[in-house]
Amino acid sequence: MAKFIIIGERIHCISKSMREAMAKRDPEPILKLAKAQIDAGAAYIDVNIGPAEKDGEDLMKWAVQLIQSNFDNVPLCLDTANRKAIEAGISVYNRAKGKPIVNSADAGDRIENIDLAAANEAICIALCSKAGIPADNDERMQYCQEMLERGLMQGMEAEDLWFDPLFLVIKGMQDKQVEVLEAIKLFSEMGLNSTGGLSNVSNGMPKDIRHIVNNAMLAMSIQCGLTSAIVNPCEPGIKETVRSCDIIKNETLYADSFLEI
Amino acid sequence: MAKFIIIGERIHCISKSMREAMAKRDPEPILKLAKAQIDAGAAYIDVNIGPAEKDGEDLMKWAVQLIQSNFDNVPLCLDTANRKAIEAGISVYNRAKGKPIVNSADAGDRIENIDLAAANEAICIALCSKAGIPADNDERMQYCQEMLERGLMQGMEAEDLWFDPLFLVIKGMQDKQVEVLEAIKLFSEMGLNSTGGLSNVSNGMPKDIRHIVNNAMLAMSIQCGLTSAIVNPCEPGIKETVRSCDIIKNETLYADSFLEI
Repeated sequence: MAKFIIIGERIHCISKSMREAMAKRDPEPILKLAKAQIDAGAAYIDVNIGPAEKDGEDLMKWAVQLIQSNFDNVPLCLDTANRKAIEAGISVYNRAKGKPIVNSADAGDRIENIDLAAANEAICIALCSKAGIPADNDERMQYCQEMLERGLMQGMEAEDLWFDPLFLVIKGMQDKQVEVLEAIKLFSEMGLNSTGGLSNVSNGMPKDIRHIVNNAMLAMSIQCGLTSAIVNPCEPGIKETVRSCDIIKNETLYADSFLEI
Repeated sequence: MAKFIIIGERIHCISKSMREAMAKRDPEPILKLAKAQIDAGAAYIDVNIGPAEKDGEDLMKWAVQLIQSNFDNVPLCLDTANRKAIEAGISVYNRAKGKPIVNSADAGDRIENIDLAAANEAICIALCSKAGIPADNDERMQYCQEMLERGLMQGMEAEDLWFDPLFLVIKGMQDKQVEVLEAIKLFSEMGLNSTGGLSNVSNGMPKDIRHIVNNAMLAMSIQCGLTSAIVNPCEPGIKETVRSCDIIKNETLYADSFLEI
């Protein structure tokens, strides 16, 4: 039995309040969002500090220690283009509740993040892309193979590579959604773990319908074998969809109270 | 492009108000429920009059004419164990908006309902069961083959047999859900249409969580290729899930207003 893993996406420097809290090292807004996401069912919390070229190492260390010390060493997903900041974060990371996740490697410029994850016994999100959007699933699976081989060569367990099919926005790429679902199926048939920024599918849609489309895509993706997603668990329905799919797939035993557990 | 078909399940003699309305030939409660379901996205309306051994023929004729004359010949699903009542219903049925559906045949005592559907150029729901719950998908697919052959032999188009995998209740048969989803996939790979009483999965669950589980099962089933379901479209989320899945599968074009259409 393997329950679906929600990675909470809300601690992200794209939000003005998060950016300011990170710049000022102000704990409150960050702790508030971490708590809200954990309460809503997040197993991992993503910490996206952006490029963070200047003080990324110090910032990531601060954020990792802040969140883990306040929430019983909740496992984290270290999300930045600054590799030294990821290493700095891992250097103070407590593994009691799970390995850190490096977010992310790809098959292009960022392939060395696999080496980084391997050297640090971390999980690595492996985005099946090289330069831009893969043209089709042949290309996705080629990148998947390249990254899988690279990880295995460095001594990683296959299960520590979480393959990301690259969820695409429906508005503009509606005809590509079935292909993404097929990619997830291919990962699953190979016994691989998978994840991705699922909320991207509803980008640009009216705000009040985004969660509806996200929930549908989530259930469909879980049916295809998706094992994790980077989402906003505070959006209506996300936790309920994930828990219900776990029940239907028999990954966790049913009880009338299953949504509250 | 083939949009998912919602068959509204609420006009059912198991409900006291419906039973009374049917007995008294009282149009109001029936028209009210038909309207609510059509407004909520039902393409077909199921009319379940039960065994109806006494006055089934008269009752079905009355119900068919009542609903079709009030709602622009909305197509109907004629649901009763009384074969003469189904034939009576079809005799007054208006096909302007779609063929009638015979609900249902199985591979056992009710297999002759396939003949009835064939003789009347109707669609037939073909329940993949003979006596009780099929033990596994080998058994389901054997019944599927038997009913498919029977229909084809009588001149039916394969697309007019809608195969029902028999949705099972999670409370008691949690470990069978994946198998039901696999059965839907098998139908889909054969190019067959499918349907079923999906709400059965949440039978016996607390009332406030039933729709949550139904919606998850619905999205997972549509991902597997389910083409129709007999559900309560007035339950929260059902229409939204169906429409979102249609968008994701590219069965209908996205517009910001897609949930309102």
